[in-house]
Amino acid sequence: MKDYHIALVGATGAVGAELLGVLQRRNFPVASLRAISSARSAGKEIQFKGKSLPIQTLNGDSFAGVDIAFFSAGSDISRQYVPRARDAGAVVIDNSPAFRMDKDVPLVIPEINGNDVKGHRGIIANPNCTAAVALMAIYPLHQAFGIRRVIASSYQAVSGTGARAIAELKQQVEAAAANAQVIPEVYPHPIAFNVLPHVGSFSESGYTSEEEKLQNEGRKIMHLPDFQASITCVRVPVYRAHSVAVTAEFEQAPSLEKAREVLKRAPGVEMVDEPGKNRYPMPLNAAGKDNCQVGRLRLDCACENGLSFWVSGDQLLKGAALNAVQIAELL
Amino acid sequence: MKDYHIALVGATGAVGAELLGVLQRRNFPVASLRAISSARSAGKEIQFKGKSLPIQTLNGDSFAGVDIAFFSAGSDISRQYVPRARDAGAVVIDNSPAFRMDKDVPLVIPEINGNDVKGHRGIIANPNCTAAVALMAIYPLHQAFGIRRVIASSYQAVSGTGARAIAELKQQVEAAAANAQVIPEVYPHPIAFNVLPHVGSFSESGYTSEEEKLQNEGRKIMHLPDFQASITCVRVPVYRAHSVAVTAEFEQAPSLEKAREVLKRAPGVEMVDEPGKNRYPMPLNAAGKDNCQVGRLRLDCACENGLSFWVSGDQLLKGAALNAVQIAELL
Repeated sequence: MKDYHIALVGATGAVGAELLGVLQRRNFPVASLRAISSARSAGKEIQFKGKSLPIQTLNGDSFAGVDIAFFSAGSDISRQYVPRARDAGAVVIDNSPAFRMDKDVPLVIPEINGNDVKGHRGIIANPNCTAAVALMAIYPLHQAFGIRRVIASSYQAVSGTGARAIAELKQQVEAAAANAQVIPEVYPHPIAFNVLPHVGSFSESGYTSEEEKLQNEGRKIMHLPDFQASITCVRVPVYRAHSVAVTAEFEQAPSLEKAREVLKRAPGVEMVDEPGKNRYPMPLNAAGKDNCQVGRLRLDCACENGLSFWVSGDQLLKGAALNAVQIAELL
Repeated sequence: MKDYHIALVGATGAVGAELLGVLQRRNFPVASLRAISSARSAGKEIQFKGKSLPIQTLNGDSFAGVDIAFFSAGSDISRQYVPRARDAGAVVIDNSPAFRMDKDVPLVIPEINGNDVKGHRGIIANPNCTAAVALMAIYPLHQAFGIRRVIASSYQAVSGTGARAIAELKQQVEAAAANAQVIPEVYPHPIAFNVLPHVGSFSESGYTSEEEKLQNEGRKIMHLPDFQASITCVRVPVYRAHSVAVTAEFEQAPSLEKAREVLKRAPGVEMVDEPGKNRYPMPLNAAGKDNCQVGRLRLDCACENGLSFWVSGDQLLKGAALNAVQIAELL
């Protein structure tokens, strides 16, 4: 087994930090690591495997000799630099939405469509975090009963927006305690003690860009061009881990017993479903965990062949860094 | 017009305080007000129309000479004392779930089924707060398009649990700032920086008591015995105002234009729906308002004849105190 020369674009961001942790924790065979960020971070250092690495500034020559390049610095950076990294010979695993719906780019959740990695032409896309967390529970149930459609609502943590949003929530909570006012900067409205039905940007349909991803990415990842999914994406004052309330309709009538069995066996899923003992998934417990937690499983009272359930998953791990490293492991 | 002798059971609670405010604000014709609470509050006073009123302790004689008795002290108190108040000659408006599904008790949202008040036999029930907020938007759309079913998720404020839950959230947020730990008392898990898919008590079906109310109370209030509704009820770290993400399927194909028109005309509803200007309902803005705010209206992408929308409403007002006083006004 060879060791890989790795580049990490966005090394100082929230997902970048997790990526460094996951690479170490999973003993990924790293020959060298190039930590890359914007000029703003010039002069900084990051820690990797007990060594200090200087942050390098992103430029056209950043990818010479690199085997695998992780991108986690937003769509604009990805659109500009991912093709250059690929042309320099690296395989790119891109966490941004820039290339996800591109026909030549596999969009991969290893537990669902790991085989799609084989068809890559130098770029592999990492899915949207909310879609990834929801699909981890939806897909095994689809295999058992055949998914028809999904109606969902999300409860998304501020770390999904990044480090500045984490600071903003903290600041607003402190200001509230001091009866002071804080002008929101990251979100258009206060997020402390509030919820915002607004994640992503609004499109003509009335859905947001974030909301459209569950159906679009779900179709591509599950190879189900007719998959229908409607979601309301909501930001909540939680630091880490997204949750999704899901109602799913199936072709076949699901039984609770089989659904439980299927979810218990599903890779990357942990059933936390003892409501009588107050045990159900929650962001506080899902934060920092690799597995997505599923609970509140019940036969839906309003949909024929329907199941309702609740998923909490660490969107920085399964929704981003962990999934990206899992993709790299498939290579 | 005569003035009424009023009794208020639960005068020191969160809803009780709102009831006093609503009675004053709407100039309800009050001849006398008897503020009643448990023995724990003995010796306390409350303010009403600039006067101090002593808190009286609840007992069998509390209702002599009372015309209208508001109950907001939980199911146990209601089950024990509502019949006594009625037998003493008062008309009871009960905010607890104790009598809501009783055939002889009208369950009333004045904007929807105000006429049902006429059939009362001394007891009228006030609906569940989450159901009330959701139905304020669902019913006018039903009138236009014929409702078939609803799939929803809630984002419920801690004030729905009462004053102790408000204190608990505050305490937990302060403890987090000080890196201290706080043992949850009101909820089974921390509510600060967390969300709990657990409101009410779990029943055999896997739904909670709170979740079952949307369908059960919706059927009774809208006079639709076949109405189907599935909801996941979730407690969020918000002080005041509940929000509900709703996907509704109709008999007829809804148009956005007509849906908007219908909601704009609906009594008790305010459309807040300019997503391009970041204007949508939020608990921070809905708190303290009589109207339920509706926004994020869109044609559902996964349901035939479906609309999705988002409602925020002050559950202490429309979900409780305001609705109760509106019922009294109908008498």
